[in-house]
Formats: sequence, C-alpha cells, structure tokens
Amino acid sequence: MPRVLIILGSKSDLPVAEKATKILKSFDIEYDVAVASAHRTPERVADLAKNSGAEVFIAVAGLSAALPGVVAAATLKPVIGVPVSGKLNLDSILSIVQMPGGIPVACVGLDRGDNAALLAAEILAVKDDEIQAKLAEHRSKMAEDVAKDSEEVSRNVQC
Amino acid sequence: MPRVLIILGSKSDLPVAEKATKILKSFDIEYDVAVASAHRTPERVADLAKNSGAEVFIAVAGLSAALPGVVAAATLKPVIGVPVSGKLNLDSILSIVQMPGGIPVACVGLDRGDNAALLAAEILAVKDDEIQAKLAEHRSKMAEDVAKDSEEVSRNVQC
Amino acid sequence: MPRVLIILGSKSDLPVAEKATKILKSFDIEYDVAVASAHRTPERVADLAKNSGAEVFIAVAGLSAALPGVVAAATLKPVIGVPVSGKLNLDSILSIVQMPGGIPVACVGLDRGDNAALLAAEILAVKDDEIQAKLAEHRSKMAEDVAKDSEEVSRNVQC
Amino acid sequence: MPRVLIILGSKSDLPVAEKATKILKSFDIEYDVAVASAHRTPERVADLAKNSGAEVFIAVAGLSAALPGVVAAATLKPVIGVPVSGKLNLDSILSIVQMPGGIPVACVGLDRGDNAALLAAEILAVKDDEIQAKLAEHRSKMAEDVAKDSEEVSRNVQC
Amino acid sequence: MPRVLIILGSKSDLPVAEKATKILKSFDIEYDVAVASAHRTPERVADLAKNSGAEVFIAVAGLSAALPGVVAAATLKPVIGVPVSGKLNLDSILSIVQMPGGIPVACVGLDRGDNAALLAAEILAVKDDEIQAKLAEHRSKMAEDVAKDSEEVSRNVQC
Amino acid sequence: MPRVLIILGSKSDLPVAEKATKILKSFDIEYDVAVASAHRTPERVADLAKNSGAEVFIAVAGLSAALPGVVAAATLKPVIGVPVSGKLNLDSILSIVQMPGGIPVACVGLDRGDNAALLAAEILAVKDDEIQAKLAEHRSKMAEDVAKDSEEVSRNVQC
Amino acid sequence: MPRVLIILGSKSDLPVAEKATKILKSFDIEYDVAVASAHRTPERVADLAKNSGAEVFIAVAGLSAALPGVVAAATLKPVIGVPVSGKLNLDSILSIVQMPGGIPVACVGLDRGDNAALLAAEILAVKDDEIQAKLAEHRSKMAEDVAKDSEEVSRNVQC
Amino acid sequence: MPRVLIILGSKSDLPVAEKATKILKSFDIEYDVAVASAHRTPERVADLAKNSGAEVFIAVAGLSAALPGVVAAATLKPVIGVPVSGKLNLDSILSIVQMPGGIPVACVGLDRGDNAALLAAEILAVKDDEIQAKLAEHRSKMAEDVAKDSEEVSRNVQC
Repeated sequence: MPRVLIILGSKSDLPVAEKATKILKSFDIEYDVAVASAHRTPERVADLAKNSGAEVFIAVAGLSAALPGVVAAATLKPVIGVPVSGKLNLDSILSIVQMPGGIPVACVGLDRGDNAALLAAEILAVKDDEIQAKLAEHRSKMAEDVAKDSEEVSRNVQC
Repeated sequence: MPRVLIILGSKSDLPVAEKATKILKSFDIEYDVAVASAHRTPERVADLAKNSGAEVFIAVAGLSAALPGVVAAATLKPVIGVPVSGKLNLDSILSIVQMPGGIPVACVGLDRGDNAALLAAEILAVKDDEIQAKLAEHRSKMAEDVAKDSEEVSRNVQC
Repeated sequence: MPRVLIILGSKSDLPVAEKATKILKSFDIEYDVAVASAHRTPERVADLAKNSGAEVFIAVAGLSAALPGVVAAATLKPVIGVPVSGKLNLDSILSIVQMPGGIPVACVGLDRGDNAALLAAEILAVKDDEIQAKLAEHRSKMAEDVAKDSEEVSRNVQC
Repeated sequence: MPRVLIILGSKSDLPVAEKATKILKSFDIEYDVAVASAHRTPERVADLAKNSGAEVFIAVAGLSAALPGVVAAATLKPVIGVPVSGKLNLDSILSIVQMPGGIPVACVGLDRGDNAALLAAEILAVKDDEIQAKLAEHRSKMAEDVAKDSEEVSRNVQC
Repeated sequence: MPRVLIILGSKSDLPVAEKATKILKSFDIEYDVAVASAHRTPERVADLAKNSGAEVFIAVAGLSAALPGVVAAATLKPVIGVPVSGKLNLDSILSIVQMPGGIPVACVGLDRGDNAALLAAEILAVKDDEIQAKLAEHRSKMAEDVAKDSEEVSRNVQC
Repeated sequence: MPRVLIILGSKSDLPVAEKATKILKSFDIEYDVAVASAHRTPERVADLAKNSGAEVFIAVAGLSAALPGVVAAATLKPVIGVPVSGKLNLDSILSIVQMPGGIPVACVGLDRGDNAALLAAEILAVKDDEIQAKLAEHRSKMAEDVAKDSEEVSRNVQC
Repeated sequence: MPRVLIILGSKSDLPVAEKATKILKSFDIEYDVAVASAHRTPERVADLAKNSGAEVFIAVAGLSAALPGVVAAATLKPVIGVPVSGKLNLDSILSIVQMPGGIPVACVGLDRGDNAALLAAEILAVKDDEIQAKLAEHRSKMAEDVAKDSEEVSRNVQC
Repeated sequence: MPRVLIILGSKSDLPVAEKATKILKSFDIEYDVAVASAHRTPERVADLAKNSGAEVFIAVAGLSAALPGVVAAATLKPVIGVPVSGKLNLDSILSIVQMPGGIPVACVGLDRGDNAALLAAEILAVKDDEIQAKLAEHRSKMAEDVAKDSEEVSRNVQC
C-alpha cells in the first residue's frame, strides 16, 4: 500500500511525476503512480482517492487542471496539486490555486514534481522522525551545493 | 422533466442563472435550477448529469470552475459553461475553456447566462422548429432595439 | 450538403481543422471545410453562414478572432469557436469567449479542433441516436486508454 | 454628410464617444454618431461603412470588440478602434489590436475617445490646413496647462 | 505551544487570518497569530519558524509575497501560503506558487484563510484521528448546505 | 523627401519594417527607414519627427516601446505604432496602446508592419485617389486568394 | 537646488508623490516636485533632466508610462520610476520595467512613492553618513511597529 | 573588497550576471559574483548583505524571485533586482517589483544584467567623477552606434 499516490491526468505528465518519484525513492517512502483523468475517467479518480489507502496525494495536471480538486473532493487526506506547463501556463496554475472554500488543495509551482514530493515528505514527517531526518539531510546537501556553486562562479568571474 | 438543467456551483451564482431562466421562460423551454458543487458535492453533480433527463446542461461557476468539466465528464449531452466574475476573472474563464481533448465544454462569456440560454435554445432548435422561430424573433427584436438606440443617440449628439 | 461546416480564418489553420475532420469522419457525419475571413472576405462568411445548409458551424481563428462571432451574427444555428494558438494566445481566446449578450458562441480550448467536433456531434445527437451511440463508444474507448496508460506507467515506475 | 462617423457597439458606450465629439465639435469637424453592433446588426455596420460617406471612422466597442475590424473589412477609409473598459480590459484591447494582416485598424487606448478624435483630426489634416492649425493650438494649450499644474504643485509641496 | 502558527506579513491581513482561526477554533486545534514581515523583520520570521514549536505554518501575505518562502526556508515543517488580494492579485499568487526546487510551499487560493486552516487540519490529521473525524463532519455539513441551497433555489425559480 | 518615414527603435526590428516597405513600394509611396531610439537617441527621434517632412510616421519598437509616443509628442502628423514581439509581448502592446489623453498613437498588431503600411496608405489616400485605387486592388486580390485557398482546402479534405 | 527632483506625468499623480515627499522631508533631503509630461511637454522633461541640478530623479507616471525612460534618456543621474495604478496596472509596470539595454530605470512597486524616496535616500547615503543614520533609524522604527502589531494581534485572537 | 556584489539565486543565472560583469569591468568598478539562494541558503544571503562591504548589490533571480527583497531586508545599501526569464516571466518581474512599503528594490528589465550594472555605476557616480565620465562616454558610443545602424539600414532599404 503506497503512502503517497501520484495521479497523472495524462501519461504525458510522466516527466513531472519522475521528479517526485526520484525524491520519494531516496527518502524510502512507498509510492505508486497512476493515470486517471478527472474528465475522462472521473470514477477511477474517485476510486483511487477513496480506496488506495494513500496518506498523501500528488495530482499532476495541465490545461484546465481539475484533477487535484476532484481528488480533494473525494478524500480528507492532504492533496498536493502540480500544474503542468503548456501554451498558457496560467490556466493550470489558476485552475489548481483558486479552489473554492471548503476543499483545500496545496498548489506547488509549474512542473514542480520535486517540491510536491518534498511537501509530501514534510507532511508525513509530522509523525515520522526518520523522514524528518532525511529532510534535514536533503536541505543541508542543497546548501552545500549552493556554496560550491558560489565558489566556482566567483573563481571564474574574478576580475 | 427539464429540457435544460442549470447547475450552479454556489447559491451566490443565482443572478447569472436568472439571466438564463428569463430567456428560457420566454422561449417556453422547460428548465430547472440546482445547486451542486464539483468539489463539495461531486456525487450530486454526477447524479444530476446522469439522471436528470435534461437534454442540455448549463453549468455556472467561478474561481477554479471545475463544474462544467465535471458535468461533461458524466454525460454525453452538450454542456455549456458560464464563468462567473470575481477577483481575477481569468481563473474561471481559463478553467472552463481549456478542457483537455475528449470532453468538450461550450464556454460562453463572463457572467453570460443570457448567451448560455440562447445557445441551449439553438441546440434544441436543431430538432424543434418552434424554438427556431422564437430565436429568429428574438434576434429581429435585438436589431430593432439597436436601430432605435442609434436614432436616439444620433439625435442627442447632433452638432 | 454538409451537416457540419468548418470555416477557417486562414489556410494556415488547417491542422486544427484536421483534428475535427478526423473525428467527424469516424462518426460518419457529413462535413465540409472552407476558408473565409471575417476581415478579408466578410460577405463570403455571411454567405456560408446563411446558405451552406449546415446544422452546426465550427469557426477556427487566431489573433483577434472575430470569425466565430461574425458567423454567429449571420445564423441561428449553433456556432462553435476554436481559438488558434500564436504569440499571445489570450487574444484569440478572449476574442471568442467574450461575446456580447444576444449572439452566443460556444468556445472550446486553444487549438481544440477535436473537442469542437465532439461538441458538434453531441449537438446533432440531440436528434440522432446513431451519433449518440458513437459518442458513448468513443468515450468508453478513451477510458480504456487511460486504464492501459495507468497500468503501463505504474509498472514502469515501481519502486 | 459627416467627415467622421463614430459607431458605437452599444448605447452604453456613449460616454466614450462624447470625449470624441467634444473635440471634433471644437475643431469644427462634421461628425455623426450611430449605434450598430458587429454581432447584432452586421448588415447595418457594413451599410454605414460603405454608404455614410465618412472620411474617417471611429469604432467604439467593449468585450470581444469585433466592431472596428468589421468596419475596416467594409471600407478602405481609415478606421480607429477604441476599446471600452469592463471586467477584463485585455479582451477589448487585444480584440482591436491583434488584427490579421491586410485589414488595418488604428487602436487607441482604453476609453480614449479623445485620442481617437485627435487622430481623426490628424488624418484629415493631411489635406486640411485649418485643422492642422487647430491641432497646433490644442497642443500648445495642453503644454501650457502642464506648466501651470507644475507651478501649482511645486508651490504647494515646497519644503 | 501552538500546533498551527499563522504569520501575517502585515496587520492589515488579519481578516484573512480570521477565516483560518474560526475553523481552527471549531476543530479545537491550538494556534497563535503573529505579525512578522519577510522584508521588515526577517530575523523575527526566522525566529518564529525555528522556535515557535508549531507543527504547521500558515503564512499570509500580499504583493511580492516572500513571507511563505522565507518561512519555508527556515523550517522543515509544512508551510501553507495564502496570497492576499490587492491591485494586481497575480503578484501575490505567483510569488507564492512559483517557489524554486527544494523549498516547497503549499499555496492555497486568494484570501483563502479557510482552506489554509482545513489543509493544516488535514496535515495534522495524518496522526490525529479526532481531527480526522472533525474534518469528515465539516465536509458532511457543507454537502448538506449545498443540498439545502439547491432546494431553495429550485423552489424559487420554478417556472 | 519621404511621404512615410519608418523609424525603428533598433536595427533588429528590420524584419518588421520590411513587411511595411514591401507594401509601400508596391503602392509607389515614397518612404525612408531610419533607426532612432527614444531612449538612446531622443534628440535624433525629435529631429526626424520635426524635420523629415514625412506626412505619416510608422514607429516600430519592442519592450517598453516608448518610441511611437515620443515621435507623436514631437509632431502633429499621424503616428502609427508597431509593437515588436519578444519574451512578454504585452509590454510592447500596452506601452503603445495606452497613450495618455492628448497625444494619439495608432497602434496596430504585434509585428504587423504590413498593416502599418496599409494604414499609412489609407491615410494618404484621404487626398490621393491613385493610392485609393491601389488599396482597392490590393483588397480584391486578398479576397481572391482566400477563395482560392478555400477551394484547395475543401478539395483536399473531401470525405 | 533640490537633491531629489520628483517629476509627475500628471497633476493627478500627486498623492503618489506625497508618499515620497513625506519621507524626504523627514530625512531633511531637499527636493522639488514638477509636473512634466513625456508626451505633452517632452522638451520640458528634457530641460528638467538636464538642468535641474538634481542628484536623483523620481519619475511618477501611469498608463504607457514613458516618463521615467525619457528622463533617463536625458541624464546620467539615477532615475527611479514609480508606476501609477489605473484600469490595467500591468501597462505602467511593464512600460517602466522593460527598458531596453543601455538606459537603466530603477522601477519600484505600483504607487510606491514611499519606496522611491527610500531608494533615493539609499543612493544619496552612498556619500552621506547622516542620511545613512536616518535610514537605519527608519528601519528600526518599522521593525518595532511590526513587533507591536504582532503583540496586539496575538492578544486579540487568543483562543 | 568589491564595490558591487552580484548575487545569483542559482548558478544557471550566470549568463545574466555576465552582461553585468562585462560592463563593470569596462568601467573599472571592483565587483564579485556569489551564488546564494533566498530559499536554500537564507543565512548566506543575509551574511553577504551585511558583511561583504559592497556599496551596491545586484540580485539576480527567476521564478518567485525573493532574493532581491531578502537582500534589501538585510542592508541599507541600494539593491538592484534583475528578474530572470522562464516559463511565465510575470512571476519574476512581479516578485521583484511589488515590494511592500519600507524596503525598496530597484527593479530593471527581464534578464537586463547590463542595465543593472549601468544603474550601479550611476549610483556610485554620485560620488565618483571618473565613473561619471565613463558613463558619458558609454552613452555617446551608443548614440553613435544607432546613427551608424540608421545609415546602414536606410542605404539598404532605399527604394
């Protein structure tokens, strides 16, 4: 049983999902990925939301991205929405951000599967100290990378 | 049994619906109005879409306006979406217009309950000559009103 | 005599039209495609709208996309507008969506010739049970495709 | 016979037209104002464009503002488009600015009836020295007003 | 020690916070509200993020809404961002949604303090069955309200 | 002495200008092209606007496109502004359209050097019947091209 | 001779200027305010930019806000641009931000006369320790105000 | 000790920084470049802002570009923000422009490292006549380049 279920509105959203699975795998968090469209297979979406047993959902969708909201309508678990980029970009962002009162969705940035996974990890870490430790390690690693980048850049541009 | 079912995402969308009911009433087209939220009562929306017996649906919603798409996902009848104005306006328009391939929604203008009703009438007129006649009459009337407005304006601004 | 007439604002819009013709052909719905510009050949547009005998119109246009509205101004049949993508995208969408009261246009998504054809089919299905059956079949097929995609994706990302 | 014909898409656009008529009157340029909708009365629009005898047209419209383009499609005289403000504003601006190649419209700013009239005067001044003189006088007056405003403001904010 | 800490970028954001506190209070979730600006008091923000002991943060800010990101930079706990409406609206939404990789913020809708509180509750419910039960109750209540609204509306518009 | 002076904000805008020169040449209208930046060479711009003897100006600029307004500020002749496409597009369009009261600029579409030239021709045609005749011929030619495109498209898509 | 010259595109921009003068006065920095329009009085703008003797300029303008760029074109002193809010807001912001290479303008937020004044003070503080001290004091005061607001808010919302 | 410190939110922003370093080098202004993220290494940003000894800061960032504001929050020196282009562009521009009252950031155009450097030079020139002289020379050179471009273009397009 996955702790995090990633639902894609379309198979073409897979590259965004893979940014998430890479992080979840490195954190040893069980996950699964499904394709289910809010518009083409609404019952499948509701079924996954109600019966997958996941503790957190990540819903990835572009265009009029109803998927995260439709998942949120069918579960009381936290739902993270990831808008997918396309010709307009504002369409998927606003469709996910502007949820009506009562049914929250946690929107992350355009194509940000990575941040969706980290947010899912932060949510699970509320009751799981091991994940908390891995989050701390991940963040330290990022800070070190920035410091290395800085040294490299500063060396190269020296006047 | 209504021929046109108007579904509102929220009771506060009623003024937009009333622009539609005024026209449907004057065309003698049976209709009903229901409130059902794609996010707060998704099963109710699916139930109305599948079992109301309506021939055309008008779905009215603001913000992340998933309602028209969720109705369209549950029926093969034509679904007309009416975006409701708010703080952004682009949110409801893009949420309704930018449907993915396979599930069409017919989007009309911001708060345009009137055009939604006329479009529903045009659709029913495909098999109903009486409605066709009323549409022709309604349009003639509009043209006459424009002509009257023009005379009045021209008279008043005469140099 | 075509049941659906697709009017393109420019020959360059043909790829969008072909998404529509592919579906109409598979549904055995008679159609024709014409090029006629609201700005360069307005009389030709009005002539097609009044005399082609089509039951539903699909008007495809980019930029300041006046074509769908100009077709709608000249007929009482349902008119579906398809905004074509370009440098701005909001121009064609808003030009088609934001019709004034009295003259409805059914706007679908950017470059969505496919949804325009499905909407036309839904409209004709109001009086044609064969088309209704084909719509049901088409939708089942889509749901099956999503299920297959899901299995494939889930298998490939298994941790 | 008016030298400038102002066409309004709707009677409600009259306040924008009055900014234009005020200037045209002060320049002694004959004008008339008509209401004619590109969507509700397209033939009336074409008739005015072809038979009014005007040398310059000012077309004022909001929403999906097809009017200026439809006027331009029916005449070879210069057509000035004035987008009218509303809930979105980008709709009327982009509908008027983004004309396809071959049919030019001269777009001025949102609700800028005044600039439309001045542009019409500049166009007529190409062959009319009296108007040219009035334009020069009008512009000097504006510069003097700015100078007076500046003195007043500087006096009041003196530290 | 509050389980949820609501941080406001400015005292003027209080009405948005009160939509959140109303829900948290009804769910018996301990909370506190602080004012701390990412720009005017960055150290105060970091101090609250690191030392308040909160399990979930809600950061409310308008304009260039750096606050949620700055909170997220200083904690590994989940951070919910609430964009506040103003003259542009897209500024606060995009500033909160478009976080770079590595530091997730969960953005909810414009002025949606209510959804921020519900999302915080869903996150705490990952380990707290009482909150889970209250969420279920809250959602049932909403569905009932929609049903009542629907009956009332349908009765009033009956043709 | 050119009748139409095309001023480019930057040499890189030349492709847009060439759409204009192609039309002006075919209409036998004398023109010249200059590069002059509102920001880098403001005095050069004012000098061209005041002393070139042109009857109509076409100002082509991208980004914060101040050039058309700065030309208009220095002449009473009609000034046509052509916004150049770039990373945002709304920047050059809005900079040219949204002129303050008193100084009109005639904005055409993004990169529409062709429409700028046609508008210039329409303006000169106010006093020049030969240009008027060429405009009529140009428009007939366009209508014929559309008719040919239509036949070709219809033949190819025949079901 | 003012150290900071505030130029307004129109007298109606005075409320934005007063946010600046209030701060400059409290910092004992000499300033003056003038009205001068980039479009209506371009020579006056150039004259002020070249001959006022100011060390820093603040240019306040709405719509197609060419003023800051036109000031910057005529001086090598730092120019701060303040976009003024109106019907669109994106017009004045983008007109000021998107300057071409070579002529920098320092854009601050919509209607932010206060930040323009503080930025001017920071620039003058590069060589003036007294102003530097006043900036430090001003910032401490802001931080204290935030702390007071926080206490007040926390007290009032206590559960 | 650098007089200008360029801080990049990410190593990938280096091309934008190099437009700045090229100008600073040619002006003989000491500079350094560092990578430091407002979100991944907030303490590093504050440390650079407080202890680098720079007289002017240039902060380069994309997406939700909090970096310039976070630098400005930690120093009283002038901070210039450079929005980096990406999928949306409005996100980085609005995140940098729309700073709250009290903490000014001087925003330049999208990817305009060059203008950031020139603005930094103008600020330092407030107390440094050598830099002032180089600015004058740089601007003359630009004007000459425009004149040359103009001659070349005019020669090539001669009718």
